[in-house]
Amino acid sequence: MKYTYFTPGPAELYPTIYEHLQTAIDEQIGSISHRSQRFRDIYKFADEQLRTLLSIPSTHGIFFTGSASEVWERILFNCVEHESFHLVNGSFSRKFYDYANALHKFAHLFEKPFGEGFDSTEIEVPDYAELVSLTHNETSSGVQMRPTEMHKLKRKYPKKLFCVDMVSSAPYPELDFSLIDSAFFSVQKAFGMPAGLGVWIASQTCLEKAERLQKYDSMIIGAHHTLPTLWKHYQTFETPATPNVLFIYLLGKIVEDFNKIGIDTLRKQTDEKARMLYKFLDSSDAYEPFVKQERHRSQTVIVANTKEPSATVIARAKEAGMVVGSGYGKLKDSQIRIANFPAVSAEQVNALIEQLKR
Amino acid sequence: MKYTYFTPGPAELYPTIYEHLQTAIDEQIGSISHRSQRFRDIYKFADEQLRTLLSIPSTHGIFFTGSASEVWERILFNCVEHESFHLVNGSFSRKFYDYANALHKFAHLFEKPFGEGFDSTEIEVPDYAELVSLTHNETSSGVQMRPTEMHKLKRKYPKKLFCVDMVSSAPYPELDFSLIDSAFFSVQKAFGMPAGLGVWIASQTCLEKAERLQKYDSMIIGAHHTLPTLWKHYQTFETPATPNVLFIYLLGKIVEDFNKIGIDTLRKQTDEKARMLYKFLDSSDAYEPFVKQERHRSQTVIVANTKEPSATVIARAKEAGMVVGSGYGKLKDSQIRIANFPAVSAEQVNALIEQLKR
Repeated sequence: MKYTYFTPGPAELYPTIYEHLQTAIDEQIGSISHRSQRFRDIYKFADEQLRTLLSIPSTHGIFFTGSASEVWERILFNCVEHESFHLVNGSFSRKFYDYANALHKFAHLFEKPFGEGFDSTEIEVPDYAELVSLTHNETSSGVQMRPTEMHKLKRKYPKKLFCVDMVSSAPYPELDFSLIDSAFFSVQKAFGMPAGLGVWIASQTCLEKAERLQKYDSMIIGAHHTLPTLWKHYQTFETPATPNVLFIYLLGKIVEDFNKIGIDTLRKQTDEKARMLYKFLDSSDAYEPFVKQERHRSQTVIVANTKEPSATVIARAKEAGMVVGSGYGKLKDSQIRIANFPAVSAEQVNALIEQLKR
Repeated sequence: MKYTYFTPGPAELYPTIYEHLQTAIDEQIGSISHRSQRFRDIYKFADEQLRTLLSIPSTHGIFFTGSASEVWERILFNCVEHESFHLVNGSFSRKFYDYANALHKFAHLFEKPFGEGFDSTEIEVPDYAELVSLTHNETSSGVQMRPTEMHKLKRKYPKKLFCVDMVSSAPYPELDFSLIDSAFFSVQKAFGMPAGLGVWIASQTCLEKAERLQKYDSMIIGAHHTLPTLWKHYQTFETPATPNVLFIYLLGKIVEDFNKIGIDTLRKQTDEKARMLYKFLDSSDAYEPFVKQERHRSQTVIVANTKEPSATVIARAKEAGMVVGSGYGKLKDSQIRIANFPAVSAEQVNALIEQLKR
């Protein structure tokens, strides 16, 4: 049976990926050298398409890693000398904080219960924190932090580096990269690709910090995928080591498809599908939205409490050809998570709602 | 035009990859959860097939990273407290050494000129070196170090950790994993896959070292892909973060195909094709083998000096549908590199030889 995946990543593949994969096979993209002009063109194309989609200015570079989790480590190595600050309200924002501790950074924490979100007015950034780590979309709980709140906070603390985990929401959040120093995502979420590629956007300010830590403070900033090395190779659209050439090619092509639709339309479609889902959850007796505050509800990962054991709901949907995610961690058995990515249409979301009503 | 890639990685794709990719698409492998039983089965299958192919004992775990270059960093973080020792005779063995310096290890060096190889009798491992870094196949120069020499050296220094870069030769070298503590490769070389996955084999001794460094010596061993975290998840055939699920699936399938042929046959086929190539180079007026000592000549990356500018040779071969690699670095213009991986048949190697004769 062919399923529709409403799981929050890995997720449903974007429908155009199959034709792009066929072109890649025909053009032998899997065999080309990463030191060839053909590769440089592929990197440049992906870079240009991503810049258009996400309004990334020329002050920021775009780099590729093995995963978004790797980027957590790279940002901490490259942009934090001593202290970082983390807003934590779920498993993934906590992992970023855990990474900071593993690297012996002095990691400050402002934590909220699972399912609750952050507003700028309640946040005090510690004096010596160099980096503020924000999670746009906490995949485990379905909580978002609005970009406008992020921007307000940065205006209050203009000298701190601000980085945004947009793993399970990009390209939805409208980040202003004149205020956000770094952001990152992985391709197996809203970009509808198989997992295996992380995308790291970082500013010249981040680069300067990394250079300072390495040269003048003699700090270890890692050996692989350091920001100075990535940036140096980026000048000619190359990478320090052999990257996932095929996935960079596919990403460029899918982002081109996104740009043909237009980012405004994509965001409106996402809003509309999210509205359908929350409206159903709000009116249902069998489900309710987990996140109480509307302004903190994610548009891309919708989490619902289930009256029945979630395994029953999930099994019934699967019989009907639809895969929804279970709750995360301790809430595995009492919640479902529904991804609302561009790969699933309003018709498919409607079919899921009809199924959940049964 | 469809080319045959004789480049040393990315390289010609293994012919069965297309059917495996089609199966992966049909089975929606790109969308399945990395926390599902389906993924655990995929990891377990790849693990079993690699164990059979490379005779990996149960003392060693098999882990996946973004690339082999990442593994350089992970080994140094996890297995070296203060000092490492590197045999360097080309660009890639030197990069491993450079990574050690970047991580502020005290890195000892025994260097030979480009094109020369190492024998065990000439090597003195420094007293305080904890890790001995060997490169089975130096991709830049086409020099190999024979596994028997590696094993002899380990017997002389049984308390040192031995790690082997087999990036551009695995599965060819017959390593004895009762003597080799760690080895690694990437899939875009002899496994005939697109780039984007590193494979790291590491022993319990490596794990114990990493645990000791982290727990008792309070050292930073990284945050992402640390050996203790990889190993913990490996107990249930999972990974700490979302891995390249699709490529792990493809790797398992291709290694199964290799096992059907049998590793002995694969090695004999490699020997036979290498013999054809060196015989031609030895007898040619237009080319000569770059590596003088026969025992140091690589079977998998054959490097030749060209009388004509190598660009002319490469362009002529390309017109005939064959892509060969240029020389590395400074020798770009006076050398060609020919990969002899399982994806190219004896007939294809023969066709290349006929082409080079023209």
